[in-house]
Amino acid sequence: MAKTRVGIINVTGYAGVELARILCQHPEVQLTSVTGRSAAGQVLGDYFPHLKSTELTIEPELGEVDLAFSAMPHKESAREIMPLIDKGLNVVDISADFRLKDAADYPQWYDFTHPAPELLAKAVFGLPELHREKIKSAQLVANPGCYPTGAILALAPAVKEGLIGTDIIIDSKSGVSGAGRSLNLTTHYSEANEDTAAYALGGHRHLPEIVQELKLLNLESSLSITFIPHLVPMTRGILTTAYAPLVTGKIADGKKGEEELLNLYRDFYKDEPFVRVVASSPHTKHTWGSNYCHIHPAIDHRTGRLIAISAIDNLVKGAAGQAVQNMNLMLGLLETTGLEALAVYP
Amino acid sequence: MAKTRVGIINVTGYAGVELARILCQHPEVQLTSVTGRSAAGQVLGDYFPHLKSTELTIEPELGEVDLAFSAMPHKESAREIMPLIDKGLNVVDISADFRLKDAADYPQWYDFTHPAPELLAKAVFGLPELHREKIKSAQLVANPGCYPTGAILALAPAVKEGLIGTDIIIDSKSGVSGAGRSLNLTTHYSEANEDTAAYALGGHRHLPEIVQELKLLNLESSLSITFIPHLVPMTRGILTTAYAPLVTGKIADGKKGEEELLNLYRDFYKDEPFVRVVASSPHTKHTWGSNYCHIHPAIDHRTGRLIAISAIDNLVKGAAGQAVQNMNLMLGLLETTGLEALAVYP
Amino acid sequence: MAKTRVGIINVTGYAGVELARILCQHPEVQLTSVTGRSAAGQVLGDYFPHLKSTELTIEPELGEVDLAFSAMPHKESAREIMPLIDKGLNVVDISADFRLKDAADYPQWYDFTHPAPELLAKAVFGLPELHREKIKSAQLVANPGCYPTGAILALAPAVKEGLIGTDIIIDSKSGVSGAGRSLNLTTHYSEANEDTAAYALGGHRHLPEIVQELKLLNLESSLSITFIPHLVPMTRGILTTAYAPLVTGKIADGKKGEEELLNLYRDFYKDEPFVRVVASSPHTKHTWGSNYCHIHPAIDHRTGRLIAISAIDNLVKGAAGQAVQNMNLMLGLLETTGLEALAVYP
Amino acid sequence: MAKTRVGIINVTGYAGVELARILCQHPEVQLTSVTGRSAAGQVLGDYFPHLKSTELTIEPELGEVDLAFSAMPHKESAREIMPLIDKGLNVVDISADFRLKDAADYPQWYDFTHPAPELLAKAVFGLPELHREKIKSAQLVANPGCYPTGAILALAPAVKEGLIGTDIIIDSKSGVSGAGRSLNLTTHYSEANEDTAAYALGGHRHLPEIVQELKLLNLESSLSITFIPHLVPMTRGILTTAYAPLVTGKIADGKKGEEELLNLYRDFYKDEPFVRVVASSPHTKHTWGSNYCHIHPAIDHRTGRLIAISAIDNLVKGAAGQAVQNMNLMLGLLETTGLEALAVYP
Repeated sequence: MAKTRVGIINVTGYAGVELARILCQHPEVQLTSVTGRSAAGQVLGDYFPHLKSTELTIEPELGEVDLAFSAMPHKESAREIMPLIDKGLNVVDISADFRLKDAADYPQWYDFTHPAPELLAKAVFGLPELHREKIKSAQLVANPGCYPTGAILALAPAVKEGLIGTDIIIDSKSGVSGAGRSLNLTTHYSEANEDTAAYALGGHRHLPEIVQELKLLNLESSLSITFIPHLVPMTRGILTTAYAPLVTGKIADGKKGEEELLNLYRDFYKDEPFVRVVASSPHTKHTWGSNYCHIHPAIDHRTGRLIAISAIDNLVKGAAGQAVQNMNLMLGLLETTGLEALAVYP
Repeated sequence: MAKTRVGIINVTGYAGVELARILCQHPEVQLTSVTGRSAAGQVLGDYFPHLKSTELTIEPELGEVDLAFSAMPHKESAREIMPLIDKGLNVVDISADFRLKDAADYPQWYDFTHPAPELLAKAVFGLPELHREKIKSAQLVANPGCYPTGAILALAPAVKEGLIGTDIIIDSKSGVSGAGRSLNLTTHYSEANEDTAAYALGGHRHLPEIVQELKLLNLESSLSITFIPHLVPMTRGILTTAYAPLVTGKIADGKKGEEELLNLYRDFYKDEPFVRVVASSPHTKHTWGSNYCHIHPAIDHRTGRLIAISAIDNLVKGAAGQAVQNMNLMLGLLETTGLEALAVYP
Repeated sequence: MAKTRVGIINVTGYAGVELARILCQHPEVQLTSVTGRSAAGQVLGDYFPHLKSTELTIEPELGEVDLAFSAMPHKESAREIMPLIDKGLNVVDISADFRLKDAADYPQWYDFTHPAPELLAKAVFGLPELHREKIKSAQLVANPGCYPTGAILALAPAVKEGLIGTDIIIDSKSGVSGAGRSLNLTTHYSEANEDTAAYALGGHRHLPEIVQELKLLNLESSLSITFIPHLVPMTRGILTTAYAPLVTGKIADGKKGEEELLNLYRDFYKDEPFVRVVASSPHTKHTWGSNYCHIHPAIDHRTGRLIAISAIDNLVKGAAGQAVQNMNLMLGLLETTGLEALAVYP
Repeated sequence: MAKTRVGIINVTGYAGVELARILCQHPEVQLTSVTGRSAAGQVLGDYFPHLKSTELTIEPELGEVDLAFSAMPHKESAREIMPLIDKGLNVVDISADFRLKDAADYPQWYDFTHPAPELLAKAVFGLPELHREKIKSAQLVANPGCYPTGAILALAPAVKEGLIGTDIIIDSKSGVSGAGRSLNLTTHYSEANEDTAAYALGGHRHLPEIVQELKLLNLESSLSITFIPHLVPMTRGILTTAYAPLVTGKIADGKKGEEELLNLYRDFYKDEPFVRVVASSPHTKHTWGSNYCHIHPAIDHRTGRLIAISAIDNLVKGAAGQAVQNMNLMLGLLETTGLEALAVYP
């Protein structure tokens, strides 16, 4: 039987090329078309030497496929996807264009009027740990942002179970590849190396996603979330440290409370193939190149606060790997197919 | 006139060797004695090739000096310093042994009974921005920890002016040299490179310093501080991001409030030679190799929170540079002597 | 049918743990036993969180297996392996203990008298590109060193075809993981980061391997090889730049000569699954986490010299991946089984 | 007495901003004018926060100064400098435009016809260790390239004394800042991090400088030099490893020869304030941020080759620091003024 044909729109960015790497090794689908404007006409394996074994040529337009991934920048992605949806194609969108349910958020956060607000309701937010069943039957999946993936997974069990109050601080540290392959002084080697800095102090675009999804978990709460991203000198990885006050009386004191918390998290994620609740502080290195998310919930007993920490590879679970996980669900494949690779350590 | 003779106890760690670098270039004092147990007998400039121009030999015991720096580990440092104080020597202690005012904190946080609790009252906490006058007449100065330096400077204006409530989160990101020169798997290159992780989730030893000093700024408040340090893959630098609720009505809304806040910080530090309140998010790289602390206070208008960020070089303002700043004050020298070096960028 | 059971002696070093990662994902064999002295009794997936999915416990002694990998340090490895060979087990030795054919080389280069010189003739040097057929029927395979793998593959076609004279300079740049997981000031993060240095100027232990194997390719030549390794601040990867005078008249002038050279290399490696002769200067990053070796031969027309450059991942093609490649050959499996992973870029 | 006024043309690149850092701290000259096209009108200390203490504004055109540094790219630099020379100004040119004595080299290596060939004879190659006296009386000094500085200093004693034959291999490893501040995929963080690669295999532009200067040291020789530069993942530093056959009979065998060689190098550089002949393999880290060059000459006894290794900071001794050293000589100041800073380690 012929394999499902899949394609990547804009293979030349980091999310796109990471998708290509994973899909080239996927046993159940065949990557048959990749596009990229500036590089059109070049052989993919010449453009990206680590993909030498593929024989694809980068095309200006997507060829005939059964499912498409869009790795276009936001605003442009929606325009590429709209005709594909009309044609009945399944689509996984790596951009932010279909993540937010409220069309009014787009002018505010992304500076454009959404061209297809009717699709926002149709699109499913592609975090399988929260929306698996809907993803299975979705035509359009909005792959979550890298920061939201780490932040939501770190906090979801606590929010869902009502363990924490509404004052939440999310402090994330990201590797530089999260800023993409487009040239920029911020990501120029000599500027980013041996440097750490916060950015987007006025409000990062990933904040509304985080708020939207955490609220869905506990509709009664009116969350007050501060989210500050940081750039740290490494290529891959996001470590998210989230802080929130524990609601009194929900969790025992001392060691016992720590165990209860760990068990609550373990229970929440017990059937999740890619979430590991770990017993000590997680390292981004332990997820490098893999689709795993490592989470550790801890208690600051002095102040009665939850400290929930997650580690992911921003290009895998934070982008391309999760997109393939969504594709697997949409195609009725085993969710882990093509994503079993363990992290490359050290 | 003969220069003041100064010595370093334990020159072979990173704080010690950084002290040697600065003191070798100091125009008003002369480094005449350096000690180090394992390396005793070796020429300092052979042991550390960047110090080639000095002719000192590492000794087992401190020679005759007018002022001594101790860069010994905690617990051992107190024992080295006690006889020096008895002899009437001026001492700057880089360790934690005289930073905490309450002797009971030592068994709790450092696992030893303090051998000279009477000296805790005598010792001055060596953060010149808060205790300059006392430092000038001190015999024993307890040089602050690297994290407390960044955290206290970031929050001091806001706490002092009563701008913020008591729920404070301090999330710090440190370069690896902060963990010292002793070998450890955590700081093994292949483990620390391309990795970010939080540590000391149960409570870091620098927390009581931070609490002690911030409380002194506003005695009415009972602060509830969570402090979580992180290791990021760079050699030098600490970025501290502090979060706290703004007290209603103290600061205007919108842009106007941001300006008021910036001005309040600028005013607080207006006479400080080494603190620069900057107009955008600070980078550790801009302080690399220098004694400067860059601070930027921002407002999260959505949640009404202060976000105060500071950047320092952990080995300079966070250790050896601040120790020399304290020495300058103790000796009646111009505070900036020997510390004028600008950051080395990029 | 039961899978072949394989075991790893000393799983706790970087070669050992990388073997575990690859073998855990190998479809045709089962990793059933791993040993490690200091960590005996711990669960492998606790000790190395990226291996969480395995359920192995680190043992003090190797259990019953069909084939064993030894990742012990040299000298100790021979002693572990001797009884296994006596028992008739297949063994791949990652150490240097069976690489050199002349027992007299061991006291000179490794400072010990070889305990089983009779096994040196029996052992096969495990570079499949040169010794594939012998490896297939070997009981004991000596896995090449990381530097020799890159250096020999870069030079083999030129030596074999008599293209170059005997004056060869090999300048290698290695990532820090090549120095192992044992703690050492040289590989302490703050020392190795932002540093490049040469080492082993008096002669590196990998030199005799390189000489032995290149001589075998052209028995008439008496090679004069200088090999200098360098440590560069990255975790994985070896770039080898080899220089040698081109023999006059063997290769055309100008562009034509470059094409001839490229074709000669391509022809030499045309059936090799893991060697890619590339058309431009290779990057270690393009082999990161994979078993591929990228090679580019160039000509310095001004001086008539060959410049042959190779890039590998020192822990995969330079150690664990090549060991599994050898195992596949010994077991009659498809050579690429379990090693198909593409490099993880960026 | 008024200080000498100096200016920097194009302060916004890495060589320019490093010049600004050093000149701001120079006790005998005053930096009074800095230019930069794209950034004209901005305050220097806003553009580069580590220079906050200066009050200069970046100008479109150079103001009135006594001596000018040009940090313009090649070809453009000559055009900026020609009118300054006509006006009688002293100039230090950081670009390559006046380094080569033969005007015919410019079309070949730099792709332009030199606009002022008559100035090539007038210009002095600004390597003080070789041309100090001429620099003192020069009006126009051509500051050497970063690679040539390291390579020439490593080989000069051996070439001058006729110790080595003419077959020379120079393998250099440079930090990424050497590629400048202009954006480029090669120097994009995620591409350059965790990567090592050779470049300019067809001939790097610094080769003719190296050849020109080494030939001047031994006019009888017809050198056959291969020079291959590499990019390694660090911000600053160049390590150069040079290989050449030792002429028979010039140096003793064994340990004695090593001592003779070391002494010959030490003697050659005995009056040099910034060259340190060191007894073991040099590390770039030990020169970080300083104007020092560390050199170690070694012998490969097996092959009778010299291995000469040098380490510099490419932006200091390899660019801005050496430019200031040249300025000091031109102005009759103590050569080391403003350049005494020790390397910042670790």
